[in-house]
Amino acid sequence: MSTPLSPTDRTTLGRKKHRALTDRSALYAVLDEGLICHLGVVRDGAPVVIPTGYGRDGDTLYLHGSTGARSMRESDGVEVCVTVTLLDGIVYARSINNHSMNYRSAVILGKASAVTGAEQKMHGLKVITDQLAPGSWEHARDVDAKEFAAVSVLALDLAEASVKMRGEGPDDPEDEVAADLSWAGVLPVRTVFGEPEPSVDLVSEWTVPDHVKTRVG
Amino acid sequence: MSTPLSPTDRTTLGRKKHRALTDRSALYAVLDEGLICHLGVVRDGAPVVIPTGYGRDGDTLYLHGSTGARSMRESDGVEVCVTVTLLDGIVYARSINNHSMNYRSAVILGKASAVTGAEQKMHGLKVITDQLAPGSWEHARDVDAKEFAAVSVLALDLAEASVKMRGEGPDDPEDEVAADLSWAGVLPVRTVFGEPEPSVDLVSEWTVPDHVKTRVG
Repeated sequence: MSTPLSPTDRTTLGRKKHRALTDRSALYAVLDEGLICHLGVVRDGAPVVIPTGYGRDGDTLYLHGSTGARSMRESDGVEVCVTVTLLDGIVYARSINNHSMNYRSAVILGKASAVTGAEQKMHGLKVITDQLAPGSWEHARDVDAKEFAAVSVLALDLAEASVKMRGEGPDDPEDEVAADLSWAGVLPVRTVFGEPEPSVDLVSEWTVPDHVKTRVG
Repeated sequence: MSTPLSPTDRTTLGRKKHRALTDRSALYAVLDEGLICHLGVVRDGAPVVIPTGYGRDGDTLYLHGSTGARSMRESDGVEVCVTVTLLDGIVYARSINNHSMNYRSAVILGKASAVTGAEQKMHGLKVITDQLAPGSWEHARDVDAKEFAAVSVLALDLAEASVKMRGEGPDDPEDEVAADLSWAGVLPVRTVFGEPEPSVDLVSEWTVPDHVKTRVG
């Protein structure tokens, strides 16, 4: 069902290789669960990392150009790195040294290109909207011509990508487990949605629509 | 009480300047609340962004060297960018175009240096531990000589930094508010801790210690 990620030298992990996942479904799972990515570009020889919205369709990642506009303009046709990290837990070990984190992260390298074709650009906006606010594309007012011209969308191919994860209890050596001198375990970390807060300037008595309400666990 | 961040050209925001905060206490607040940062470095001319643990003491940010070891070794004395992002909400507007996120983010630029002095290195490890797992430094087994030699700690001065935030409802124009065609509001996003999961190999009947238990809201 899933094809290998075919990592290049750049995405082959230098250590803890057992934490590297090599199938594409694991990459999709991380990207589809995240809400923001961290976009890295090189500016005047130095790295710059900014958070931004994104969305995935097949093997294309779309990035929104309304956040960090300067980085976006500079990103057309240049090398970028997009990282999505899901923090799942804090790992308490018997020793300070073995403390760790449970997480899933995806790192994608490649040249991002500005989407200029009208049809693909509108599709990219829908994909980004569906990632952040599923259902809004159908509920809210469409993008008009002026807004469409002002926004920028970048596309990045998922060809060069790696996925890493840790998802287990503390990894203490046997003698420390037997010594039993400290508590050990995992404190789960979760991203949750709170109760929707209707805008104070709503004109009529709206009930919170299903596409928002159903996100609250 | 708080001194300006004194942003350089690199950290002066190119747009939406009203979202830039310029006092140091805002920077501290973001850094102190985060659990992971995204570290950007330049490798062979291309950006690489990896998640890693960190901690702050005064105007020094410490980064842990056990995650992404290759990036860490390359980071001594080279330009890095460290970004910490706290996602606070998803902003539903009347139009797709005005959908947004509420967030707080800190971006720090500068040259990271490997901490080599034994006293400062041990202090850096404590600061990083206190950020991720407060109380563990006192509870768990100390770092021994072998572990201490194997780990690396980087220090980054908080001299060149910027903080951005958005923390409000949708920003729709008056005519769209009056038209009342869509629901609008904010869906809060929160990072929470779940119930601690004791390690399956605990030898005795531990109760979860206070420094872990009290983190659960």
